[in-house]
Amino acid sequence: MTVPLNELESRLARTRTELVRRRIDAAVLVQTVDLFYLTGTAQQAHLIVPALGEPLLLVRRDLDRARAESPLTMIEDFRSFRDLPAVLARLGISGESRIGLELDVLPVTNFRRYEQLLPKAEFVDFGATMREIRAVKSPWEIERVRSAGLRSAAAFEAAAAALRPGMTESELASIVGATLVRGGHPGLLRMRGFNQEMPLAHVFAGPDAGMASGSEAPFGGRGSTPAVPQGASNRPIQRGEAVVIDVGGSVDGYVADQTRTLSIGPLPDDLQRAYDTCRDIYHEIATAARPGVTCAHVYDLALRSADDAGYRTTFMGAFPAQVSFVGHGIGLEVDELPVLGRGLDMLLAEGHVVAVEPKIRIPGRGAVGIEDTCLVTADGLQSLTPGDDQVWVV
Amino acid sequence: MTVPLNELESRLARTRTELVRRRIDAAVLVQTVDLFYLTGTAQQAHLIVPALGEPLLLVRRDLDRARAESPLTMIEDFRSFRDLPAVLARLGISGESRIGLELDVLPVTNFRRYEQLLPKAEFVDFGATMREIRAVKSPWEIERVRSAGLRSAAAFEAAAAALRPGMTESELASIVGATLVRGGHPGLLRMRGFNQEMPLAHVFAGPDAGMASGSEAPFGGRGSTPAVPQGASNRPIQRGEAVVIDVGGSVDGYVADQTRTLSIGPLPDDLQRAYDTCRDIYHEIATAARPGVTCAHVYDLALRSADDAGYRTTFMGAFPAQVSFVGHGIGLEVDELPVLGRGLDMLLAEGHVVAVEPKIRIPGRGAVGIEDTCLVTADGLQSLTPGDDQVWVV
Repeated sequence: MTVPLNELESRLARTRTELVRRRIDAAVLVQTVDLFYLTGTAQQAHLIVPALGEPLLLVRRDLDRARAESPLTMIEDFRSFRDLPAVLARLGISGESRIGLELDVLPVTNFRRYEQLLPKAEFVDFGATMREIRAVKSPWEIERVRSAGLRSAAAFEAAAAALRPGMTESELASIVGATLVRGGHPGLLRMRGFNQEMPLAHVFAGPDAGMASGSEAPFGGRGSTPAVPQGASNRPIQRGEAVVIDVGGSVDGYVADQTRTLSIGPLPDDLQRAYDTCRDIYHEIATAARPGVTCAHVYDLALRSADDAGYRTTFMGAFPAQVSFVGHGIGLEVDELPVLGRGLDMLLAEGHVVAVEPKIRIPGRGAVGIEDTCLVTADGLQSLTPGDDQVWVV
Repeated sequence: MTVPLNELESRLARTRTELVRRRIDAAVLVQTVDLFYLTGTAQQAHLIVPALGEPLLLVRRDLDRARAESPLTMIEDFRSFRDLPAVLARLGISGESRIGLELDVLPVTNFRRYEQLLPKAEFVDFGATMREIRAVKSPWEIERVRSAGLRSAAAFEAAAAALRPGMTESELASIVGATLVRGGHPGLLRMRGFNQEMPLAHVFAGPDAGMASGSEAPFGGRGSTPAVPQGASNRPIQRGEAVVIDVGGSVDGYVADQTRTLSIGPLPDDLQRAYDTCRDIYHEIATAARPGVTCAHVYDLALRSADDAGYRTTFMGAFPAQVSFVGHGIGLEVDELPVLGRGLDMLLAEGHVVAVEPKIRIPGRGAVGIEDTCLVTADGLQSLTPGDDQVWVV
């Protein structure tokens, strides 16, 4: 797969528009995912995008591979970081320019090297803008997320076929992960946020699934060690427990996030009722989330419905560890914009892709929920990860 | 598994010693792995380590879980980031103190919040020091790496049992990964370096294994997409190809890095000879790497031997994409200190744990190599990942 040139040109045009609007002379981008988004290659490189003029990709390594992967024309070898001021000058970017860097992800130590190299430049954040640009997906990108959804679906089918009483969470997670990797999953998921990380799939069941978690998710499981306190544990799964599987299928770098709740035999009434509430909230969000609506409005709707159903303190985690969102953007990273969260006034727009994940955690009993990755359209959300929205009873 | 209190006390004592030596009043640490190392919990938190006085763990979430996981006594709820100056003052750390932060990993945007909150403080990097402290492993940690080695060994056994002609790299990678996850692997590996990432296992074979790579490794494979340009591809494995498997088994958060070269039927002479050279270099390093020796010395030895054997331009990658190291520290992260690399004058010390990985890449033909994770002892290296050091012919 090569990213088509017209796709990159459109992304670069939007990037230049934002640079002009913010009176930034050039963006100097280094984060792997932003690089891939604008060039089609994820090799180690600096990408210079002048507000006016053609982008230049400076590749530390591997140059041949960058040239094979990227359809851009200006791709050069970059032997020494110290050459940066001279290269910028060649593009008409003086040492006193206003330069956009990805300050949301760039470590301070790295940043100081740019400051030393260009002591008279003014550096401003462009990472937040890159996230906004990347939030609106093209049809080409949407097709990739849809294909990734098929990979997630295959993983759920494999899990449902394998699930039996006494199997550990880790055994079930290994089957889900192996199905993804066999199908071409690169074996890792990317998160932009500092300290954020996750495995290919979360698999957990029973009371542990309801335990509090430090991860930016409604629940994260016990995991196998406090060193990585999320995901599957070695606890055997029992009949009648809610088994939550949260999968990130991936195609061409694009991820489709999907959650289903499974159980061996019917769920007890309290968990089933909580699940039905999640599904109702999901459908309510799918109708309400339209272009021009604020993220906060969608979140508030969901919260009110959860409250009305009696899940005020257990919706999206259990008090006081609840997260304050019910969905998040997704694409090349799992934690993209927009975030359907409390107080967030970002407006939804056509082409946004959001993973909508109403979930309820019942301490001591378990957790349930549903998640689909959806496209924002004029008619509301369109699921890119279709699949039976009931509890999967095996 | 809970990290024993005496283990944490020893680590905290070394941390305080470094703070005093560098005239830093307190370290304020937030990176997940450093937090886990010093507290035994990886929940979202700030850890304040005064140069003189007891450490205080401020937990955003989850507090209950942090208290259950960490044997430290001073663990408090941390509702608002703005409380930080007051909390520091309570510990005797004034607003004009010299404060150590993990500037090697902390994004600029996050850092600026500390600057705003404590405008008169002097902030210095403590991340590099944390890496130095963590480089020397305790017997308790070494046992964990050794256990992780058994998990890696199980993955190699599974791969050797499954390997057949026509199987894709991704199929083989799925078997390796599933074996690890079933055995309790948390499903992700951690790297500290900016933009660094890797899946649980690298699996690649044939000419693609020799292709250049942007990753900080001698070779990284084609991968399944330019978006994540490393790891397994969907290329079928053929008889007589070198199949390189690089695995990161994990126990209690500690990782053992190990590589073996497999083949279906005997390897062609050129690849076999390159492999034998890697093995010879491995054993040469194992004898030479002793306390008091510089990292650069070990690297230079390896490079000279590769050169003598005719692999000057193909050792540790192929010209011009070679990496300038032959081994790296490993523990809770895959890219720890010490790095056995060009020009690095860090001295090896007892208790260092290094993954030694002489590898040779022959463009158009493939790649071969061997890697064991080893303990530095007075008598040289002791492998923590024992296993047959020949090519595994199946």
